[in-house]
Amino acid sequence: MTRQQPDLTFSDFQQLIRTMYLRKDVARGVEGTFMWFMEEVGELAAALRDGSHAERAEEFADVLAWLTTIANVVNVDLGEAVRRKYGDGCPGCGQFECRCADSGKP
Amino acid sequence: MTRQQPDLTFSDFQQLIRTMYLRKDVARGVEGTFMWFMEEVGELAAALRDGSHAERAEEFADVLAWLTTIANVVNVDLGEAVRRKYGDGCPGCGQFECRCADSGKP
Repeated sequence: MTRQQPDLTFSDFQQLIRTMYLRKDVARGVEGTFMWFMEEVGELAAALRDGSHAERAEEFADVLAWLTTIANVVNVDLGEAVRRKYGDGCPGCGQFECRCADSGKP
Repeated sequence: MTRQQPDLTFSDFQQLIRTMYLRKDVARGVEGTFMWFMEEVGELAAALRDGSHAERAEEFADVLAWLTTIANVVNVDLGEAVRRKYGDGCPGCGQFECRCADSGKP
């Protein structure tokens, strides 16, 4: 029997990570926290190169957690930030299916 | 007048990015997409060092978008991944407010 869980929101996750780690992360500061984030980015790169699906999923989760904890330290609301940047379509061409030139950034 | 918007879910954002960029990202492949992701990580580092709040928010959004697009290419569900890793408490100590030793990873 599978219990259906509601879709996780950015706001819920950011609050979860805030409760879990904010005290430590504020004490450590942005620079030290960023170095932990980069270590996880490296582990994600390794998992993308030759990890299993489960290992990749775990590394994505860790990168997201460390990114979120940095956002907490500097008071950035991630859900609001992505909605503002991407909620009205591609920032380059304004379309919901990007039509920027393939040579361009996105 | 402000229209209240529902909290953005990981699932909604991952679908938005899938619609916007998947065709290009699959064509570019994981390696090329990862390099764009790293460029955005560098821009985030710069914004954390001396950017405004708005600039920081924009760079967090870009890092999230590129991370999400890599997840799309390798079929990782980000909401499920973070729920599995962090939904039952800190992966280190199992507590919702982390009590791992300060010298430890989190």
